[in-house]
Amino acid sequence: MKKSVTIVGAGLVGSLLSIYLSKRGYKVNVFERRPDMRLETMSAGRSINLALSDRGWRGLEGVGIADDIKKISIPMYGRFIHHKDGTNAYQPYGKDNQAIYSVSRADINMKLMDLAEQQENVNIQFNKKCTLINRKDLAITFEDNLTKETSNSSADLLFGADGAFASSRLSIQLQSDRFEYNQHYIDCGYKELIIPAGKNGEFLLDKNALHIWPRGSFMMIALPNPDGNFTCTLFLPFEGEKSFSNLKTDKQVEDFFKSEFSDAFTLMPTLISDFKTNATASLVTVKCAPWVFDNKIGLIGDAAHAIVPFYGQGMNCGFEDCVVLNELIEKHNDDWDIIFPEYEQLRKPDGDAIADLAIANFVEMRDKTADPKFILQKKIEAKFSQHYPDKWIPLYSMVTYSPHIRYSTALKEGQKQQKIMDEIMALNDIESIWESDEIESEILKRIS
Amino acid sequence: MKKSVTIVGAGLVGSLLSIYLSKRGYKVNVFERRPDMRLETMSAGRSINLALSDRGWRGLEGVGIADDIKKISIPMYGRFIHHKDGTNAYQPYGKDNQAIYSVSRADINMKLMDLAEQQENVNIQFNKKCTLINRKDLAITFEDNLTKETSNSSADLLFGADGAFASSRLSIQLQSDRFEYNQHYIDCGYKELIIPAGKNGEFLLDKNALHIWPRGSFMMIALPNPDGNFTCTLFLPFEGEKSFSNLKTDKQVEDFFKSEFSDAFTLMPTLISDFKTNATASLVTVKCAPWVFDNKIGLIGDAAHAIVPFYGQGMNCGFEDCVVLNELIEKHNDDWDIIFPEYEQLRKPDGDAIADLAIANFVEMRDKTADPKFILQKKIEAKFSQHYPDKWIPLYSMVTYSPHIRYSTALKEGQKQQKIMDEIMALNDIESIWESDEIESEILKRIS
Repeated sequence: MKKSVTIVGAGLVGSLLSIYLSKRGYKVNVFERRPDMRLETMSAGRSINLALSDRGWRGLEGVGIADDIKKISIPMYGRFIHHKDGTNAYQPYGKDNQAIYSVSRADINMKLMDLAEQQENVNIQFNKKCTLINRKDLAITFEDNLTKETSNSSADLLFGADGAFASSRLSIQLQSDRFEYNQHYIDCGYKELIIPAGKNGEFLLDKNALHIWPRGSFMMIALPNPDGNFTCTLFLPFEGEKSFSNLKTDKQVEDFFKSEFSDAFTLMPTLISDFKTNATASLVTVKCAPWVFDNKIGLIGDAAHAIVPFYGQGMNCGFEDCVVLNELIEKHNDDWDIIFPEYEQLRKPDGDAIADLAIANFVEMRDKTADPKFILQKKIEAKFSQHYPDKWIPLYSMVTYSPHIRYSTALKEGQKQQKIMDEIMALNDIESIWESDEIESEILKRIS
Repeated sequence: MKKSVTIVGAGLVGSLLSIYLSKRGYKVNVFERRPDMRLETMSAGRSINLALSDRGWRGLEGVGIADDIKKISIPMYGRFIHHKDGTNAYQPYGKDNQAIYSVSRADINMKLMDLAEQQENVNIQFNKKCTLINRKDLAITFEDNLTKETSNSSADLLFGADGAFASSRLSIQLQSDRFEYNQHYIDCGYKELIIPAGKNGEFLLDKNALHIWPRGSFMMIALPNPDGNFTCTLFLPFEGEKSFSNLKTDKQVEDFFKSEFSDAFTLMPTLISDFKTNATASLVTVKCAPWVFDNKIGLIGDAAHAIVPFYGQGMNCGFEDCVVLNELIEKHNDDWDIIFPEYEQLRKPDGDAIADLAIANFVEMRDKTADPKFILQKKIEAKFSQHYPDKWIPLYSMVTYSPHIRYSTALKEGQKQQKIMDEIMALNDIESIWESDEIESEILKRIS
């Protein structure tokens, strides 16, 4: 008899995990606080787009829905930079056909829920808010959002997959001594906006790119959707000269967009009303430890490691958690006394690493993508990497296209690379000699 | 009409704050989760001793009970170091008669409660557990621990003074976006033990000192009580070779104490049973922001800044919070829209600073107090400070005896001093030339 499992949260990671576990013979009950999103219409400003990359694809391939998702996703082969003066530039993300894929959070989540419910052993209940987990006997209490009735459920194993502000985690935290916990907000918020499709449904910006309007202390990005529109996200400080707090009136918003994002502004007919209707949301990083309790309870996805979205790795990292866990179940023959500690030992350093990388990438996106020196550095790295692919994989490629490289390894390697490139970029006249053999041998010298 | 105030927690800081506020004409309701400690006998292993120093005395003087407390406190003029080989050494804490004072937490708390209840405008209710604070309308819900009945209270202002794991803070946190929060545990736990008085009630160790058995990665300390006994506290890692996890059997405990604290061991007849009966507790640092909400709710004491006990500043810092707040009320004529932001702006950097200083002092106490090089450094600093009192106040004296110097200033000055002393201690043959004029001029040179 395989054990019974309760999963709190039927989001991306909770749904995927339920499929993996049921395929291994576990009986899985999933409890989701929200209503069934497949029966509701999405509210405006919540059309969140995600960038699926190799770690995420691995997670989907493992349950056989990668092809389904590929059909509703749009490959983005590089960054399309929109400068303030109206000029623009293109920076490829990787070599050859390497891409990240724009997909709708709702689309993947609904597919995963469908697939989960097709499994013999998975049951999802909606509108069930987790109000208490009794750590001792693993009894979970839920309140039904509609009836307000309380019910209990128990299981042999429990996973908290209920996101950055997981109530499962909080409940366990309040019963646990020596729980390390850190939540940190960056000083920027974000707001979703839209560039609609053209008259005939055509894309009004380059379809196969992630668009960035880098402006130093803030930026806007846009990701394509299959129906021709782009989901735009404005990342802007809450306070200060250029900030949400200084965008109060229609005129302020209009002037700001006209001046900062002039090309996009002409493509945003509903800007003013969207700006007022859509919430200004905050961006949190959560780090905590432990991730497992009594070898019976585990945290996974954002509940264990919420990160800011700037590396496009939140979902990808959560899916990789599932892949790693699935491998450990295989490796240790369902012995959770071994699986759980090894899961935490393996994944916690990687969760911490991608959290730090995501923060660092915010600076890169909003500030450095418009910096000629930075662009030159990336060119030098790309050229060197092409000549010596076994000696140099650019950091972005390690994180995005190299699931066999751990995030924590990528972080360390990236720091080494940056140190080398700082020296290279400081060489005299680097702008004119960057393509010379001398530069390659300078890099080679520093690697060995 | 002055405003009404609710204080959650009748501990040291909540009680003192209620007195300050009532003296300013506020109507104060205090709700305490625990039973009235004046009606209960203290349980074993909870006889916690605190070290009152100048910041704390200021807080007590402000409400006129410093003299009462002085009568039940014992001055400690220095550290009495017990080495492993049975030898010992004495390190004065300051110059002249500077001392810190050993007092019982219960004694001060009860005195403060008595005084609070003597105020016309203070009411304390016990066994009232705060279960919810409605941030919007400042309605507080309490559950009575005895009757299990729920009641509500509302007020114009609210203070959370309910300690490191404040339920008031948690409740507000769950209703607040962008709340910064960090809780961190050191890898050591602690356990209280006792050295009883001699046959005729006499002190079996030097009465007027804080006793330390520094052992590198762990230590024991002992503070005197008026009835002749000493409260001992063992600080020891939870895991590792010398750790709580390796002190499971009576024999292990006995062997450990015999070998590590041989002189103390002979004075601890109830060691084995105390060790088994008394809990092993953990040590947390909590940093959070903001401390004030809507200019109606404030956090104070450990609820705002829980720190580890190694600088003996937890209570002193909390009392200083009250003093600062009282000064701000005076300065700003009860205008809380000004008082609250200024309170946070002033005190948050000091709370962060003493948290970091307290962690650093753990290393100093358990490790460096036994290190001849460290002891020499302190001698050089003391000598220089005596000759140039306006140029050099040792860090310990700034923190402990200098309430006019902010913790954050002390931290910064201390870092500068340490940098200078690192250079001085690296001078050739410092052991033999430390008293020379040359050393003084070397320090003088580095100060200017």
